[in-house]
Amino acid sequence: MNGIDPGWLPPEAFRPLGARRVLIAGSGPLVDTVRREVSDACARFGGEIVRDGPYDLLLRLPDGEPVGDEEEFTVAREGGATTVTALGGRGLLYGLFQVVRLGEEAFSGALPREVHRPATALRMLDHWDNVAVHPVMGQVERGYAGGSLFWRDGRAREDFARIRAYARLLAACGINAVCVNNVNVHAVEAELLTDRIGEVAAIAAELRPYGIRTHLSVTFAAPVVLGGLSTADPLQEAVRQWWARAVHGVYEAIPDFGGFVVKADSEGRPGPFTYGRSHADGANLLAGALAPYGGTVHWRAFVYDHRQDWRDRTTDRARAAYDHFAPLDGEFAGNAVLQVKHGPMDFQVREPVSPVLGALSRTRSAVEVQATQEYTGQQRHVCWLGPMWSEVLRFRPEGGAGPTVGESARDLVAVSNVGDDPFWTGHPLAQANLYTFGRLAWRPDADPYRVLDEWIGLTFPSAPERLADGLHAVLDGSWRTYEKYTAPLGVGFMVQPGHHYGPSVDGYEYSPWGTYHFADRDGVGVDRTAATGTGYAAQYAKPWAEVYESVASCPDELLLFFHHVPYGHVLRSGKTVIQHIYDTRFEGVEEAEEARRVWAGLAGLMAPARHERVAELFEEQVRSAREWRDQLNSYFLRKSGVPDAHGRTIY
Amino acid sequence: MNGIDPGWLPPEAFRPLGARRVLIAGSGPLVDTVRREVSDACARFGGEIVRDGPYDLLLRLPDGEPVGDEEEFTVAREGGATTVTALGGRGLLYGLFQVVRLGEEAFSGALPREVHRPATALRMLDHWDNVAVHPVMGQVERGYAGGSLFWRDGRAREDFARIRAYARLLAACGINAVCVNNVNVHAVEAELLTDRIGEVAAIAAELRPYGIRTHLSVTFAAPVVLGGLSTADPLQEAVRQWWARAVHGVYEAIPDFGGFVVKADSEGRPGPFTYGRSHADGANLLAGALAPYGGTVHWRAFVYDHRQDWRDRTTDRARAAYDHFAPLDGEFAGNAVLQVKHGPMDFQVREPVSPVLGALSRTRSAVEVQATQEYTGQQRHVCWLGPMWSEVLRFRPEGGAGPTVGESARDLVAVSNVGDDPFWTGHPLAQANLYTFGRLAWRPDADPYRVLDEWIGLTFPSAPERLADGLHAVLDGSWRTYEKYTAPLGVGFMVQPGHHYGPSVDGYEYSPWGTYHFADRDGVGVDRTAATGTGYAAQYAKPWAEVYESVASCPDELLLFFHHVPYGHVLRSGKTVIQHIYDTRFEGVEEAEEARRVWAGLAGLMAPARHERVAELFEEQVRSAREWRDQLNSYFLRKSGVPDAHGRTIY
Repeated sequence: MNGIDPGWLPPEAFRPLGARRVLIAGSGPLVDTVRREVSDACARFGGEIVRDGPYDLLLRLPDGEPVGDEEEFTVAREGGATTVTALGGRGLLYGLFQVVRLGEEAFSGALPREVHRPATALRMLDHWDNVAVHPVMGQVERGYAGGSLFWRDGRAREDFARIRAYARLLAACGINAVCVNNVNVHAVEAELLTDRIGEVAAIAAELRPYGIRTHLSVTFAAPVVLGGLSTADPLQEAVRQWWARAVHGVYEAIPDFGGFVVKADSEGRPGPFTYGRSHADGANLLAGALAPYGGTVHWRAFVYDHRQDWRDRTTDRARAAYDHFAPLDGEFAGNAVLQVKHGPMDFQVREPVSPVLGALSRTRSAVEVQATQEYTGQQRHVCWLGPMWSEVLRFRPEGGAGPTVGESARDLVAVSNVGDDPFWTGHPLAQANLYTFGRLAWRPDADPYRVLDEWIGLTFPSAPERLADGLHAVLDGSWRTYEKYTAPLGVGFMVQPGHHYGPSVDGYEYSPWGTYHFADRDGVGVDRTAATGTGYAAQYAKPWAEVYESVASCPDELLLFFHHVPYGHVLRSGKTVIQHIYDTRFEGVEEAEEARRVWAGLAGLMAPARHERVAELFEEQVRSAREWRDQLNSYFLRKSGVPDAHGRTIY
Repeated sequence: MNGIDPGWLPPEAFRPLGARRVLIAGSGPLVDTVRREVSDACARFGGEIVRDGPYDLLLRLPDGEPVGDEEEFTVAREGGATTVTALGGRGLLYGLFQVVRLGEEAFSGALPREVHRPATALRMLDHWDNVAVHPVMGQVERGYAGGSLFWRDGRAREDFARIRAYARLLAACGINAVCVNNVNVHAVEAELLTDRIGEVAAIAAELRPYGIRTHLSVTFAAPVVLGGLSTADPLQEAVRQWWARAVHGVYEAIPDFGGFVVKADSEGRPGPFTYGRSHADGANLLAGALAPYGGTVHWRAFVYDHRQDWRDRTTDRARAAYDHFAPLDGEFAGNAVLQVKHGPMDFQVREPVSPVLGALSRTRSAVEVQATQEYTGQQRHVCWLGPMWSEVLRFRPEGGAGPTVGESARDLVAVSNVGDDPFWTGHPLAQANLYTFGRLAWRPDADPYRVLDEWIGLTFPSAPERLADGLHAVLDGSWRTYEKYTAPLGVGFMVQPGHHYGPSVDGYEYSPWGTYHFADRDGVGVDRTAATGTGYAAQYAKPWAEVYESVASCPDELLLFFHHVPYGHVLRSGKTVIQHIYDTRFEGVEEAEEARRVWAGLAGLMAPARHERVAELFEEQVRSAREWRDQLNSYFLRKSGVPDAHGRTIY
């Protein structure tokens, strides 16, 4: 496609494969995709698809066995030939992309037999895309990469090649599910479930050849708003029948439909609370309708009081998900997935891991992260989130011996950061977040920096070492840099209300959203201890309940999330809180300036359009970082009265 | 008109007049209007229009003299007959409405001969109405009374009866000019000047029978955006010729067209600065084009740097209008009117009088006030602005012996608070602001409480004393009540950014808008002294420069506008600043609650729809007042650490 960035699948990445003799054994739609990929590569680089030996690469499904959705594959190299064996079409496709990732290494020396198997069942992207442009939220809610890939002017786009290209990028990092519309389901979008399912089917047809199933966000009130029933009560037989008929219609149109995503009783959305029913009742209603077809319902745990009175210190939004859902563990159907945001608040740059993720031993759960950078620079700042996600996925809710979050979660979900921007993600380097998400979803214990290596190797094939080093220098620490110049020590929510870009220290301090820092002239932070605070810390199992409960053991980076401390409190780092605030603001800006300098030195090592777009965005990032530094420093100097120990300029 | 409130002209107000024998002598379009008014009243109440005596009321123009726009009229009652003599049609119309105001008093006992002559030439309402709905500002910018009376769906409305009824209300309080579109002239609205002047002419035709001239906001860039010229440089002959042609076209369509309103070089609008020319050059360009036809240009003095860096303490937005315009005094053409906001900032609940109003001895000036309650409760709060406007108009920029602002100003302008709401102004009691503006514009030294009496008498004819007392109780102190619970001591701008409703103490503190309070842990306020601050105080003549310069002599209510003081500073009232902040917050809420209580007691004394609308709005006012109280008290307690002396709840 003219003018559209190839992302991590530039033609050049297929050179090693495309110069070889390749034998493909097996049949089925996804094998056809594999064959087309190989054929295109060979046409470009002089290799060929052969019908029998000798070959350099064998891509095979087992003879005679039924071919399903199995994702596992094995790669080995013996006797001068490389073999990828898979149990199903998806596995073969993933194996092909693994060969692409390996590059020449796939064809040189010996490769010990390696079995690749995803740790998670569903690796999903949720698009918060509206069909009709929303008057406040626009086409894509919290989208920073242009319009929707799927919808425009109130209809499905007919840009099918673009959707197919997108599916190909997703498959190449292991994603196998896409939800095509916003979790906030407005009036127009509600109709996708019934009258307009054909439009969803058209999108599904483009995603399917790359092994991606289509999911749909639906409104819990659908029986009322679409079906004309007087109730959406999950325990009413008429409601159950309505959903059964609706789901039947969906599968008539999309036989491999993935399932529903539901945001219920959240920020004004309808839900089972309206009828005095539990969220298990609500989720199980939809799960029951989907079960005969193998579909799942992703039920979001993002339920809290968004009309809180800021004067009320007893209510703690951080507690809400646990309070609502932990008591329901074990009550959800097997194909109901509780989709839990990784932190208890809302995708802040630093939050503790949600205690809900340690409280669901008898519920299938999905961890939800946000690839779209709502609170992390909105794709105008470089902020590679791999290390943050990796910390979450490696966290052990029960401490040393217990499983990690990544081991417990059946599914991983990211809110998509993709739109119809030529670079897909607005900021060209934000592609790394999408790629990293896919790979960590496949293997949550992967080293994110190795994943970044992969992304660099694919996106910039045969890049000189200087470019790879520069990209690492710019990306590796970018999340911590962003944290340094924005809200400090885990306190969160110092953003401009509404759009959430740029600083406003008190922007959410007297709001109904449950997002407070309680800074006064003496100190700052939220007391969430069991002893004197909201009790949130006690939602964790040991050892974390104890670690977080005590100022002495709480990690510095989460201190203000769990404790209200005086500005003179000495951190484990040896610095006072106030000096830490000043120092990290100054450091963060310096690091952003340094990244901009490094980037400038990479000119000439990539396509000029890509370099220039990033260079322009760095100007905005540095401007914005300085604004964060100066506003926060002035705010805390005015409040605390404590001067900077190093006498730097605070306005 | 069905369902539209009659405002201060209910049929009942015409009873005394309509029951009489009335002789009308004179001719012309406005005399026709007078005749129609009298005829309607007589048809309703049994009086008659007679061709000769005897009569109870004589409305006459002088025989044989040419009838112009003269507004003066004389009322007298001798020998059992009342006589209104006027020099022109407008005067006769205003005389008629004076008779309506007098009610039975006009026909009983003796009335000494009284000459009524407006103190100001133009008494204008500026409608910030957009033709096309603006994506951010909507149909009416800063409008709180529904859509526009003039425009809908990108075209002039055909609701001519409504416009005529509006003109009638305006004439009855003395307004003689209306600007029909927003001073921020967007692309669609720019075309009103040329291709779409016919739509303006249609509106003008409905305003004309009530003596109201139509004015138009134009963009200074019109020669470029409409005329296709490469420049709008005011000193270019081609530009001058373009404007001459454009104005010629306007007067072809609207022979009594009033003139232009221009917002130039302000908040992103184009202006003469683009071409290195002065604002006198800019204004005189348009004045020159309008002069042959007797039109005027109203040139707004609202020019400041709205991209200020909050870190820059040397720039002071309050200084900007004076710095820009005082040096130009004497350079403006005779038909160029410098339109000056009453305060140096932007219609805050309390500001000093703009020093520009004391610096224009050789320039025709207009005082601009805001009837639309952008910063004073947005027509959800009762806030009768008569006392504030009266204070401004009675202010003597040169002290004791010099003229008042009201005496110096040639024109008075209000930003309209009217829309297509059934009560015209959203809040039914906000009608009092519109009426009061018109009457104060006619006679700036009028007692506003007497004007309010008039409004009550007209709006609620034959109201029991209890209703009049109740209305006074609710309205008289409402501006000071609003001041009490919002930003204290003249400091201004503690509103939510953007829409400007509700509190956000730091909402504009780190913004580019030049609107800061500099509160820190020790004190609050802006040092605008000549000695140590921005020097703004020195823009005043003596004695005010000295009064404002000194903390000791500065009036309490403006203290934080001129000085940064410690929280412990003792006001002239004897209270500390911090205790004043707490006390007035609590008092303001109590007063709002009391007004709500008084209003509840007036049920049954007026149409239920009006009572209910106000009662509902009082719920919101009290809620909002409490929010102001609690946010401000919490903010200042957290910053100052000083507890309330009376131990009341601060969250």
